[in-house]
Amino acid sequence: MSVNIYDTANQLEKEIRETEQFVKLQEAFTAVKKDEEASKIFEEFRSVQQVLQQKQMSGQEITEEEAQHAQEISGKIGQNETISGLLEAEKQVGQMIDDINQVVLKPVRELYQ
Amino acid sequence: MSVNIYDTANQLEKEIRETEQFVKLQEAFTAVKKDEEASKIFEEFRSVQQVLQQKQMSGQEITEEEAQHAQEISGKIGQNETISGLLEAEKQVGQMIDDINQVVLKPVRELYQ
Ligand SMILES: [Ca+2]
Ligand SMILES: [Ca+2]
Repeated sequence: MSVNIYDTANQLEKEIRETEQFVKLQEAFTAVKKDEEASKIFEEFRSVQQVLQQKQMSGQEITEEEAQHAQEISGKIGQNETISGLLEAEKQVGQMIDDINQVVLKPVRELYQ
Repeated sequence: MSVNIYDTANQLEKEIRETEQFVKLQEAFTAVKKDEEASKIFEEFRSVQQVLQQKQMSGQEITEEEAQHAQEISGKIGQNETISGLLEAEKQVGQMIDDINQVVLKPVRELYQ
């Protein structure tokens, strides 16, 4: 990377840390970590999500049992405000990162249009 | 996005356009477009690549015929300096974008470590 670009990327990184979205994500993450019940459900959710994603990517079928397990956890998450808060915060940060990528990748995108 | 972040992302976008890597990619892309033979091989390459990627993502098997076709095109590309130049330029820009993403995504990455 040229020096300018490196400086600007670092500037962006600092500014991301200061956004309302990122600060809220940190808080939501800490809230889940502090809550034993929420932590347990969240870890279970991540683990099931990983299995399903890997199966989907490799074209393997998802068993009825796995689908039921996933639904069960989704239910638990919907009833747990601490985790719902984290997922919402993740969504907001994800949207911000997508917006940044839209801008940053514009030169390359335009070239191939 | 907050105003600062938006400004900084736009600044980064401008600087990307000015990098040696991006300028070379533009030149390499124009060189292929101007060359009828190279254009034809490049389009064929992209089309085969797309089919193989879609099959891979959906878990479908790649036929022997498709594998042979892919190899044939790879051979043609290796012998065509105009296309090889474009692929190398794409690789360099891809590396630069990856480097930027490494920096920009650091706050989120650190949170989940
Ligand atoms: Ca609780
Ligand atoms: Ca030629």
